[in-house]
Amino acid sequence: MKLMIHQTHHQTSDFKGVLKSLVNLFNQKNLENKEPEPTLHLFPENFLTGYPLKDLCLQKSFIDSYMKLIDDLNNLSLSYFDQRPEDVKGHSLLIGGLDYNFDKQGLPTQIKNVIFELTPGEKLKSVYTKRLLPNYDIYDERKYFAPGNELKIWNFQGKNILLLICEDMWPSHFYKVDPIQEAYELCKKENLSLDLVINLSASPFHLNKLEKRVIRAQEISKQLNAPMAYCNRVGGEDEILFDGGSFITDHHKILCQGKVFEKDCLVIDLDKSETKTPTTSQEKIDPPLSSKEKVNTWEWFFDPQLDKTATPTKLNGLSDEDCKVILQALKFGIQEYSEKCGLNNFIVALSGGIDSALVLTLMKLFLKEGQKVEALYMPGFYSANLSWELSSELCKNLDIPLYQLPIKFIHSTVRNSFRESFQSELEGLADENIQSRLRGSFLYARSNQTNAMVLNTSNKSELAVGYSTLYGDSVGAISPLGDIYKSEVFTIARYINKQYKDIIPEKIISRPPTAELREGQEDSQSLPPYERLDAILEGLLSYRMSPNELVNLGHDSKEVSKVFHLYQKSEFKRFQFCPIIKLKAKSFGFGYRIPLSHKRVE
Amino acid sequence: MKLMIHQTHHQTSDFKGVLKSLVNLFNQKNLENKEPEPTLHLFPENFLTGYPLKDLCLQKSFIDSYMKLIDDLNNLSLSYFDQRPEDVKGHSLLIGGLDYNFDKQGLPTQIKNVIFELTPGEKLKSVYTKRLLPNYDIYDERKYFAPGNELKIWNFQGKNILLLICEDMWPSHFYKVDPIQEAYELCKKENLSLDLVINLSASPFHLNKLEKRVIRAQEISKQLNAPMAYCNRVGGEDEILFDGGSFITDHHKILCQGKVFEKDCLVIDLDKSETKTPTTSQEKIDPPLSSKEKVNTWEWFFDPQLDKTATPTKLNGLSDEDCKVILQALKFGIQEYSEKCGLNNFIVALSGGIDSALVLTLMKLFLKEGQKVEALYMPGFYSANLSWELSSELCKNLDIPLYQLPIKFIHSTVRNSFRESFQSELEGLADENIQSRLRGSFLYARSNQTNAMVLNTSNKSELAVGYSTLYGDSVGAISPLGDIYKSEVFTIARYINKQYKDIIPEKIISRPPTAELREGQEDSQSLPPYERLDAILEGLLSYRMSPNELVNLGHDSKEVSKVFHLYQKSEFKRFQFCPIIKLKAKSFGFGYRIPLSHKRVE
Repeated sequence: MKLMIHQTHHQTSDFKGVLKSLVNLFNQKNLENKEPEPTLHLFPENFLTGYPLKDLCLQKSFIDSYMKLIDDLNNLSLSYFDQRPEDVKGHSLLIGGLDYNFDKQGLPTQIKNVIFELTPGEKLKSVYTKRLLPNYDIYDERKYFAPGNELKIWNFQGKNILLLICEDMWPSHFYKVDPIQEAYELCKKENLSLDLVINLSASPFHLNKLEKRVIRAQEISKQLNAPMAYCNRVGGEDEILFDGGSFITDHHKILCQGKVFEKDCLVIDLDKSETKTPTTSQEKIDPPLSSKEKVNTWEWFFDPQLDKTATPTKLNGLSDEDCKVILQALKFGIQEYSEKCGLNNFIVALSGGIDSALVLTLMKLFLKEGQKVEALYMPGFYSANLSWELSSELCKNLDIPLYQLPIKFIHSTVRNSFRESFQSELEGLADENIQSRLRGSFLYARSNQTNAMVLNTSNKSELAVGYSTLYGDSVGAISPLGDIYKSEVFTIARYINKQYKDIIPEKIISRPPTAELREGQEDSQSLPPYERLDAILEGLLSYRMSPNELVNLGHDSKEVSKVFHLYQKSEFKRFQFCPIIKLKAKSFGFGYRIPLSHKRVE
Repeated sequence: MKLMIHQTHHQTSDFKGVLKSLVNLFNQKNLENKEPEPTLHLFPENFLTGYPLKDLCLQKSFIDSYMKLIDDLNNLSLSYFDQRPEDVKGHSLLIGGLDYNFDKQGLPTQIKNVIFELTPGEKLKSVYTKRLLPNYDIYDERKYFAPGNELKIWNFQGKNILLLICEDMWPSHFYKVDPIQEAYELCKKENLSLDLVINLSASPFHLNKLEKRVIRAQEISKQLNAPMAYCNRVGGEDEILFDGGSFITDHHKILCQGKVFEKDCLVIDLDKSETKTPTTSQEKIDPPLSSKEKVNTWEWFFDPQLDKTATPTKLNGLSDEDCKVILQALKFGIQEYSEKCGLNNFIVALSGGIDSALVLTLMKLFLKEGQKVEALYMPGFYSANLSWELSSELCKNLDIPLYQLPIKFIHSTVRNSFRESFQSELEGLADENIQSRLRGSFLYARSNQTNAMVLNTSNKSELAVGYSTLYGDSVGAISPLGDIYKSEVFTIARYINKQYKDIIPEKIISRPPTAELREGQEDSQSLPPYERLDAILEGLLSYRMSPNELVNLGHDSKEVSKVFHLYQKSEFKRFQFCPIIKLKAKSFGFGYRIPLSHKRVE
């Protein structure tokens, strides 16, 4: 039996694209094999529709187009079999999709996240419904889908194949059932041996996720004594990336693995001896861990990157490998988003600081043929000459056009207008923020002129403490650094400089961070040093620690209290922020939901 | 038996306030009654914590403070009974709160939304867990809470009392169980008669919701042949308002009803004859409707306001009563939000058009003692003199200070700067948007100067088609009109003019809408007339209709197609929009979740 894992890359609701790819498959040489070999084709979870759909799956226009796709696929299957029965014999497809129930008025009453079997000559047939519907963090599956309640051991060419969809392999305290444990018990009871475990997934990327998936699959393969095939999709859905990396593992042996952030197709013949499972006797199977023994706390899910042995706790640094993966992910995320928005120009506002310098450098590294990026430097009264010099040097290194649009004169004009209109001076916070907002406005005016996508330059630390001006430096279409702490920004910059011969001027990395909105301003005047700030923030955000706990872990109580206060009062800025490319297990964005206004907790 | 419904009004996570109110209750004269009368006190769902909490209920700082409250309440109960056993005898409290399970590390593994019994002399005791956890639209309860699985008939002073929490009274296709039907069957089977049905709620407001609750309660009271007491909270949680309006109904007879959008306390003696249920024999009980017979489609939930008998369909107009309720709701919503933000000044940018005029007028009507509102008019090259005249007239009528800050000179300066920096003219969309963004920046500079809350002036129609400039006229801390279609804006303006002697100049209402961003611009050049636009939008949003369906209902296909296209491509503007006060069953905001980028569906 041949297995083909189709690691696909389609936009959400790209029904025409999905149909075309299946037509192509049916037309392929491998379906015209003169001596047909039984082949099982796997496609990811929700391949037919895309994922996550959110409310889209409830809209009639979406549903109508989807139902048309289903009809087209049924016709395709019937007609190919009619025309070339011998060519398609022995082939079968397992495809992730949605199964709708409607009321009399045609409104959806129930949607199931299912695996369809598509055997040439037959219509699509739902063979399995996803049982564990994740509903924590970025997941809202209980909002849209009804869970299945039956284990499915599906038969193909005499083989016993356990079917799973994504979360089904991750039983936890959220769920009452454990499909893996159930399968283990069923096999034992009925003296059944499994030939294959299949998991069709749409599994979002974050750092270390790929390893986590493989380890878990190896565990399951060992427990159920059968190879496990994991088929994941590729795609960027606003904040959330799907990284592919599909694989087949037999116990601990990885038989093959797909590319990351790229479509791919894995082919393997499972009947060849090298792919046989090493242990076949029941005695050698380790009893599976029951879900209750697993660590299923928020800590396990959100993988806080804290060194708790240090006093005070320290943020775990990014390794070179982490940096490499982050760059891959950001490139993919930005390219996906800009493609869907139909934009090939990019623009970044440079301040002379590290965040904007890194974003610009990354964008240059990410450019595809036909794409352009430009930089805009908008000096004001408090901008140091050094900021201009460093921005020029950076753009020269990167070979990127740099425009200068001074805001001093306009700023003066606005000050005068305020004096005239309100008989009051523009000063303090009002005078600081107006500079940032003028810059935001001009950046967008330029983006309107050149049809360019504005890349936001805020980092996770700033976002967490609200160290930015709403509608000012917080503007942008998408945020590449919004899931990267300031101390990690430095690490990534140094990583890039190692790879690309100090392309970012060293001085940009080493000068003290400042917003340059008033005379002599430095971040360190209002914030703790970034390494301490970031350790506190990771505790608050990923561990959901209380200030007390942080103090017990050795942090200064005044510092913790200040950070917690800034964090609580800046929710309104995060509320109006652009999509953040998700890189970590716990991020701001869709999976982070805090009331804007509530009585502050100490 | 006396029943007291405490329709409370606390901020979310205001643990000190909650404790204080219960201490006050224990100190009240009614607990010192010399001839103690058995009294049952009802408090709303999640009274102890507030609602909705979102991720707040997972944060350690929140949990620690909440656990301290539980301890304090237990001590209160024990100490009062120790000190004055006779005073508190016969009293009992039913209180909505959360019941946590923790793992060994103290991280929450399960949270239940429960009713606590608090009987003086005893500790808090969880007596019922909410069974139907809503998870559609604005609701995410399955994300945080584990459902209960048992009906509870609770005994107080020999009375049989059915306990329900909020959604438990709304069985639908979302749920496998129907607590009302179960209660009916249990009573029949065990020949049990109920004395009272209690529902502790945190039920969000929307138009007609109050009536819907009462009708449903009457139905239940009749079905279960017992009076039903409905206790709702009061509060504004960002977008979502809780309107109170608690009541007791006995079959169809409403015995008492609380105020709306105000805390209140209802007291009733259920033993007095007038409150006895009119039918006592089993024969007279109508069989309950099973949940399957109920209309439980999106249509039923989202109550689309369309006259489908008209060709093309028409948006149902707002009645005077609707307008009155909307004004109450908006006043409450804005005041709640500003109080939590600690702001007593408000600012509105006037354009001379109806939206900003209405927002300013509303804010004037909503002002409390010590609060101020000011208006800012920022004319540009394309602003008509009439716009200034009408803005002046309005502010004179309202007795509100109006400031003028012309943007012409600054706009010219920006045009020159762009010519100089980029050797290219600021024109077309870039030149239109910069005006709007300069205004947004100046509005916020003024708000920084005066510590004022900026009220957004966008309406639901504009939001739906993206007819606004991001970071320009779309700015604001909160949106009063974001759930009101443009044609409804006119209706509300005329309603106000009826109540307040044409306080809004007629010409503001009757002049053709325009953004005044280029010469001779009028909304009607780019959009269908608002009455048709709004009917199409309500079809798209509340019915989730497809363009095809709208055309079948008599709408012009080009118009529908244009509106659908504008709607689909403006998701990114809604993504970065401020909180919208929710007034309708289906609104933009937290309950509306659409991917930003996906393959457009026709």
